[in-house]
Amino acid sequence: MSNRRFLLVRRPNGMPVPEDFSLRDEAVPQPAPGSIIVKNYFASLDPAQRGWMDDAPSYMPPIRLGDPVRATTVGRVHGSANKDFAVGDWVVGLNAIEEYSIVAPGGFTSKIDVSGVPSPSYFLSALGAVGLTAYFGLLEGGNPQAGETVLVSAAAGAVGSVVGQIAKIKGCRAIGIAGGATKCRRLIADYGFDVAIDYRNKTVEQLSAEIAAAAPGGANIVFENVGGDILDAALMNLALQARIVLCGLISEYNSPHGKTGARNIWQLIVKRATMRGFLIADYVPRFAEGGAQIAQWIAQKRLRVDEHTVTGIENAYDAFMLLFKGGNDGKLLLKIA
Amino acid sequence: MSNRRFLLVRRPNGMPVPEDFSLRDEAVPQPAPGSIIVKNYFASLDPAQRGWMDDAPSYMPPIRLGDPVRATTVGRVHGSANKDFAVGDWVVGLNAIEEYSIVAPGGFTSKIDVSGVPSPSYFLSALGAVGLTAYFGLLEGGNPQAGETVLVSAAAGAVGSVVGQIAKIKGCRAIGIAGGATKCRRLIADYGFDVAIDYRNKTVEQLSAEIAAAAPGGANIVFENVGGDILDAALMNLALQARIVLCGLISEYNSPHGKTGARNIWQLIVKRATMRGFLIADYVPRFAEGGAQIAQWIAQKRLRVDEHTVTGIENAYDAFMLLFKGGNDGKLLLKIA
Repeated sequence: MSNRRFLLVRRPNGMPVPEDFSLRDEAVPQPAPGSIIVKNYFASLDPAQRGWMDDAPSYMPPIRLGDPVRATTVGRVHGSANKDFAVGDWVVGLNAIEEYSIVAPGGFTSKIDVSGVPSPSYFLSALGAVGLTAYFGLLEGGNPQAGETVLVSAAAGAVGSVVGQIAKIKGCRAIGIAGGATKCRRLIADYGFDVAIDYRNKTVEQLSAEIAAAAPGGANIVFENVGGDILDAALMNLALQARIVLCGLISEYNSPHGKTGARNIWQLIVKRATMRGFLIADYVPRFAEGGAQIAQWIAQKRLRVDEHTVTGIENAYDAFMLLFKGGNDGKLLLKIA
Repeated sequence: MSNRRFLLVRRPNGMPVPEDFSLRDEAVPQPAPGSIIVKNYFASLDPAQRGWMDDAPSYMPPIRLGDPVRATTVGRVHGSANKDFAVGDWVVGLNAIEEYSIVAPGGFTSKIDVSGVPSPSYFLSALGAVGLTAYFGLLEGGNPQAGETVLVSAAAGAVGSVVGQIAKIKGCRAIGIAGGATKCRRLIADYGFDVAIDYRNKTVEQLSAEIAAAAPGGANIVFENVGGDILDAALMNLALQARIVLCGLISEYNSPHGKTGARNIWQLIVKRATMRGFLIADYVPRFAEGGAQIAQWIAQKRLRVDEHTVTGIENAYDAFMLLFKGGNDGKLLLKIA
């Protein structure tokens, strides 16, 4: 029995290439006293992982070269030297893209009850960081009021699609920005957005004009996942006292030329608007509350959460790259076992 | 008797040049019913005026070509067709750089009591938008707590020098960024900053390293007047939950190449920080409260407000340009009468 691990062996320069990684076969570890061994069934693939590959000051240390790529995983306890975990327990935690993870006490791993969900993978999507980021990001970061307009970038993505649906549940108008006609159709048909805007092949001015047409009074809330031109166009269409929830900046994670940031922040002064950085880790104490609400909305068929699953750890690189090509429909997952 | 007026005759492309303006001699106007004629004694010269010269969507309409350059002025009522104003009353209001302004009812003009101040010009500096911007911007926008670190850009400027002093009054550590050794000395000697950093001839990385050395735990509050490299360096040195009060972006007002904005906004996510646009106009209902507190601090000699006065409306252009050359020491005023 072996443990295949997807290692980071070189820091990507811009867009990651296959040579930045290596799939290594190692022995399955034994649990040290107090530790457990988790057999990973699903690994979450997220834009944030790209940031962890850089040697830059962030909210977590960079992934060390030679270590497997850090990832939240769902799996089962394979071996236990900890009285709180029994072999066979389902768990979720911050582990890595590898078949078996060793988890020391005090890690982020916690037991989950998978009996009520269609798949254990839900703890990486609807009931995981994705659903909770949408929930707390929009509600706490944006404070939406009925009748307000919510503008969402990467709106067909894992987080964006949930943000739009929660905006609608809260009585807001939802405008989604996505790439391509297919995704734009899904925004309306699958996720209930009021307006879908295709950003492809448009200048900041053209995109800004389309947002203005869709939201003549401006956006009260911008839920930003992309940055760059899309954020610049959003900044030109703020309502007074607008709130920008800065959740991600996927457009610049692979830029070898440095960061673009936001060029039109002067509009924050003009509109007395706020741009606030959001990180789901701050809401760990409220995960149960958020998860319960999301589960209820799903049960009521008011919320739809899609998963896009790629099977096989040997496909980890190709799967990860889908994030930066807009190639995934729904939360991107790697099925490992 | 004539009325010299400093007109905007062409929209500046980048840095304003003398040909963008014209000093015109016109007849002194007569007050229409309900209006007053104000003889302007002092005009306030502010970076915001540069923004009003552009044809861009902002919180106020652009100055129309052929109109005098909009400015807050202090003056006396020269003619009145309004029962609330008598000839000789001192007033402050949003008028223009001209010897006489006609003020219609409902304008921003209000009567002031100049008996308790060293000069009526104080209503354009300590007790005007400058003092009130520092007061409300820092206290409401930044919410400083004793022991926190406040980083101020353009710290020797009219607003910045007051921000630093109020930060000290509130028990904070104040770090000021200014251009040149003379200004840096004044930050310490005149305004009580704990640390002065000279930004001149430094890269973002060098500036960031100096801020890091002065504030190893990061800045809890950034009071931003400049933007560009200085804001980028500040963004790399935020404490968790930092608040950036975005008050001005003087570095880009004259840029003919479009806006730089903020390149390092990814740090807002890393530090879960907030960048909030601030405009003093929102605080008009609380001006009396702020003005009273500032006047008290001045009387107690806890707050020093410097004025830099240029005399003569014929020097309006040269005076205005001091703002962009860092040439003024204290609040820049044009003495007209």
